[in-house]
Amino acid sequence: MDIERLAEGVLAGDRRALARAITLVESGRADHRRAAVDLIGRLNDADHGRQAMRIGLSGTPGVGKSTFIESFGMMLTGADLRVGVLAVDPSSARSGGSILGDKTRMERLSRAPNAFIRPSPSQSHLGGVARRTREAIALLEAAGFDAVLVETVGVGQSETVVAEMTDLFVLLLAPGGGDELQGVKRGIMEMADLLIVNKADGDLAATATRTCSDYAGALRLLRKRPQDPEGFPKALTVSAMEENGLERAWEEMRALADWRRETGHWDARRAEQARYWFEAEVRAGLLARLSREPVKGAMEALARQVEAGTTTPALAAAEVLTDVLGLGPEAGETGLDAETSLA
Amino acid sequence: MDIERLAEGVLAGDRRALARAITLVESGRADHRRAAVDLIGRLNDADHGRQAMRIGLSGTPGVGKSTFIESFGMMLTGADLRVGVLAVDPSSARSGGSILGDKTRMERLSRAPNAFIRPSPSQSHLGGVARRTREAIALLEAAGFDAVLVETVGVGQSETVVAEMTDLFVLLLAPGGGDELQGVKRGIMEMADLLIVNKADGDLAATATRTCSDYAGALRLLRKRPQDPEGFPKALTVSAMEENGLERAWEEMRALADWRRETGHWDARRAEQARYWFEAEVRAGLLARLSREPVKGAMEALARQVEAGTTTPALAAAEVLTDVLGLGPEAGETGLDAETSLA
Repeated sequence: MDIERLAEGVLAGDRRALARAITLVESGRADHRRAAVDLIGRLNDADHGRQAMRIGLSGTPGVGKSTFIESFGMMLTGADLRVGVLAVDPSSARSGGSILGDKTRMERLSRAPNAFIRPSPSQSHLGGVARRTREAIALLEAAGFDAVLVETVGVGQSETVVAEMTDLFVLLLAPGGGDELQGVKRGIMEMADLLIVNKADGDLAATATRTCSDYAGALRLLRKRPQDPEGFPKALTVSAMEENGLERAWEEMRALADWRRETGHWDARRAEQARYWFEAEVRAGLLARLSREPVKGAMEALARQVEAGTTTPALAAAEVLTDVLGLGPEAGETGLDAETSLA
Repeated sequence: MDIERLAEGVLAGDRRALARAITLVESGRADHRRAAVDLIGRLNDADHGRQAMRIGLSGTPGVGKSTFIESFGMMLTGADLRVGVLAVDPSSARSGGSILGDKTRMERLSRAPNAFIRPSPSQSHLGGVARRTREAIALLEAAGFDAVLVETVGVGQSETVVAEMTDLFVLLLAPGGGDELQGVKRGIMEMADLLIVNKADGDLAATATRTCSDYAGALRLLRKRPQDPEGFPKALTVSAMEENGLERAWEEMRALADWRRETGHWDARRAEQARYWFEAEVRAGLLARLSREPVKGAMEALARQVEAGTTTPALAAAEVLTDVLGLGPEAGETGLDAETSLA
């Protein structure tokens, strides 16, 4: 594979190159992984200075997420902006979400020339999905996309993961009922920069307005975060179906992004996220050694001795660290704990 | 420190040696850790063949856990059995639980010559507490204790950890209200071998009986587990205050333990737990390398480059694994993910 040409294609915004590049970062094959790391490195070195607005979008099923993404995405492409849509859903392989495909969910947007929708990788491992999504964001950014929407399901751990790779976090809600009634997990509300109450149309319009003001009131009770200007986090109503309130939502996102860029919070957050993923990659890479030969076989042999009671977990673990992995004698201490003095 | 003599003291059931040994396994100091690993190894090699019944005990605050442990422990010591009490409570350091001390909670038991109560280590890290508790159990077992009660708070992750180091898991409940009303987390109910409804005395006696039969009914609806004989998991009532039903509870525990010993489930479970802790120790030991020099400093330098955007998380991580840790070039792949073919 010609990684240099692929990088050029991505930088030129070529859709086929972009699709190929995303497939590359999604691959678990060792040679593909090396190529992917090389590709992302080259794009980084190219110093294109391009930054998409990375928007995490969460909301429980039924809240109208697909309709919102489609309408919001169409509004953006209509304003000549390029928008990418990615999904983080570790369960999608099981629920069939990725089999039906995100493109059928967003028919109009998938045909828009300025939009790029990538169906969720059929992966059940959140760690794997996280890296792929994060690298796909980097590719879309290098390809000059203006906004990248990262969609997640609103019911699990994936929100935290998405918040670690996006600039803004948007929580989509339905009119009526509290967030707990809607199945939004505790803690997700606190992560949101923008709460958007969807379905503010027809019979639900009044309820949506009420729900929105309830949330606005609740948000004022939260402790002010340093990364927020006055008035944020903010609650809004939209009707994705009737395409109302979408420009307003985008304006609020831009206002927040502008403020954070000016005050340095934007860059600080990106730097912090980069460090977080670097450390996560090191840990994952280190632990992955344990499931590869010859370490795997040596551990299995020691595990049998531990099971038989001829050695202890601690002694066997020290043997793996020192003798098998060759990490030096001090690797036997786990060093997890504070010092204690012996009486 | 003379580890050989300490091991002899523990094997002889000497209380001071035991107390010293537990303090040793609780220490985070590198030389103490090495001595502790050596000590546990020696006790294991002594092949004393002693097995305590390791009983995990969970229950939310207010359920009468201390009173139960005290009464149950007194009943056991009254029957000439030696009983140890350990606590796993990662939050105790903050809540003050370990400052007041478990001994004040269980005054009679703490004075009983056949009982050994060890206050929770003042540690907030569950991983650290887990290893200490597990090793303290091994020490009590080598010292010839018949039963070891490992107490936990019933509201968090610590139950799973305790279930991974005990033979039986007992959930203590109050009369009236469902387990969810009592704040018992989902999944803990399913871990229990015995549900004990406490406070079956005075005005609450009838309610306790009703609550117990409700649970007995609910338990019959659970899928039968291979490690259970007919009739288990079982629900019982006790009055820890009036010391009623405690012998019955102990008989049920012994009946269950006997059945599991005869059918091989007992040994299989202990083997499985030993493997689990061995693997956990390897992972913890490996990750601990990252917070020690020179790796720590090298990672910090790379993290700054990642923050500045002059390299990518993946490239920097590969550098740590290959160059800093010297784990060979293939360590750059995390291997977390399934293979994907490139179209």
